[in-house]
Amino acid sequence: MFDYKLLAALAAVVEQAGFERAAQVLGLSQSAVSQRIKLLEARVGQPVLVRALPPAPTEIGRRLLNHVQQVRLLERDLQGQVPGLDEQSAPERLRIAINADSLATWWAAATTEFCASQRVLMDLVVEDQDVGLKRMRAGEVAGCVCAAERPVAGARSLALGAMRYRALASPAFIARHFSSGVSPAALARAPAIVYGPDDQLQHRYLAELGVSGAFAYHLCPSSEGFVRMAEAGLGWGLVPQLQVREELASGRLVDLLPERCIDVPLYWHHWRNGGELLAGLTQQLQRAAATVLVTPAGR
Amino acid sequence: MFDYKLLAALAAVVEQAGFERAAQVLGLSQSAVSQRIKLLEARVGQPVLVRALPPAPTEIGRRLLNHVQQVRLLERDLQGQVPGLDEQSAPERLRIAINADSLATWWAAATTEFCASQRVLMDLVVEDQDVGLKRMRAGEVAGCVCAAERPVAGARSLALGAMRYRALASPAFIARHFSSGVSPAALARAPAIVYGPDDQLQHRYLAELGVSGAFAYHLCPSSEGFVRMAEAGLGWGLVPQLQVREELASGRLVDLLPERCIDVPLYWHHWRNGGELLAGLTQQLQRAAATVLVTPAGR
Repeated sequence: MFDYKLLAALAAVVEQAGFERAAQVLGLSQSAVSQRIKLLEARVGQPVLVRALPPAPTEIGRRLLNHVQQVRLLERDLQGQVPGLDEQSAPERLRIAINADSLATWWAAATTEFCASQRVLMDLVVEDQDVGLKRMRAGEVAGCVCAAERPVAGARSLALGAMRYRALASPAFIARHFSSGVSPAALARAPAIVYGPDDQLQHRYLAELGVSGAFAYHLCPSSEGFVRMAEAGLGWGLVPQLQVREELASGRLVDLLPERCIDVPLYWHHWRNGGELLAGLTQQLQRAAATVLVTPAGR
Repeated sequence: MFDYKLLAALAAVVEQAGFERAAQVLGLSQSAVSQRIKLLEARVGQPVLVRALPPAPTEIGRRLLNHVQQVRLLERDLQGQVPGLDEQSAPERLRIAINADSLATWWAAATTEFCASQRVLMDLVVEDQDVGLKRMRAGEVAGCVCAAERPVAGARSLALGAMRYRALASPAFIARHFSSGVSPAALARAPAIVYGPDDQLQHRYLAELGVSGAFAYHLCPSSEGFVRMAEAGLGWGLVPQLQVREELASGRLVDLLPERCIDVPLYWHHWRNGGELLAGLTQQLQRAAATVLVTPAGR
């Protein structure tokens, strides 16, 4: 069998983003952690880590991490059958990559019951879809919620439904920029809010209205900050309707074109051999998502 | 004078986190951008970039970037005096590093008037305090809101006031974990929520109650996700009271120990020679912060 002390050292260095923190978590000296990584590399016959800041796994390192992640989940199942062991063990920590808007809206309510009954602690990583799947492939996370359907090797993807986005702005912003109505030309001239370089929702919304080319926008990489900026009248932007029920009801935010929305489908990626814990979470997510997400509109 | 075409290429590669995007933004081919960086390095006599993913400035590269940032702000002042030029120019983009909780609460309302009247677009970067100041030192941002007081060389820091954090949980969570009252021992046993590896607020809260050692916690690197998790009953955690006025008023979240809070002071870091635009924003922030932040409690 593999030497899991060595593999645990690799996992800790990557998960803790450094040798120093890994040593703390493992209760070892930093040089002991280094030793273990070197020994692992001697056995494997090639480097498992790129010594950068933070340290990154090599191709072979990624495969080893993926294996560690799956072994951890299988160990957990076994512990369930050996109650004596279970009493001693700390709560399980499940590392999940998730898109920011899911975390800002439906995720917490969907997982509370599961976490409480299974004694699971969530270790959430906020990532856009491609990076989330890369972490999945690297074995750094046990699951991933994102808009990409295609699973990585060894994993399954489950359609959860779609988040519905609406183009919103504050009444004052609308009065200032759309006094003669929300025309495509007026929208293209008014400052928008964009979550980050990978957020194409505002571009897509304008393109569907026939507007092409550049437009002015604020960059705000925070779901809550995005809503606060729209509410304060800094710009217009596409916001999950789940996130702003109160703001819409009270009129603090207004739908620019109520007949238009963009549905972003969401998928739950999880390991095929992820053990019972991951299977339980998958069932729970499927049930919960059905009550909060929408059926994606045909495109 | 310096060749600003070369410096602009350096700034674009760092700001866009790659040669490809830099080329797009500059309207050049990727090889032309590479050429410019090489030419700059030939003139400087040493590398200005570490060719990693993403490319990072070297020590000398950082100094050049810092200079570019300041020149841009000074150019802006000049444009204000040459209205002909101004008409042609795109809105100014101001890159600011900010802590997540400020962005989730007071920032948008504090800057709306300024952005609208000065035609400024915000390019926000969410960073914890040390990283935010590093970006400041590297000349990547024009300003930074964080909890560290000490300015980097060439910059000033202005005390804005403090964010008041309270330990909150849902009524159901309280019923489950604190049926015999919120004792330090019960708090240490109940799962907490922690924003990320650098968030020590929960540790500090427990330490002030005399609890030391490890405790179980969920990791949730999202301000809004943090509140949703507390509200759903996944754990208890320290939340800015500014962020949860409605949740507290409606009883969806409850203060665990109303007589206890943690005040985190906030500072606005900005370049000493940042030009009129940055000076205007500084005045605006000072005024706005005084109305929403608190005077830090003596420690």
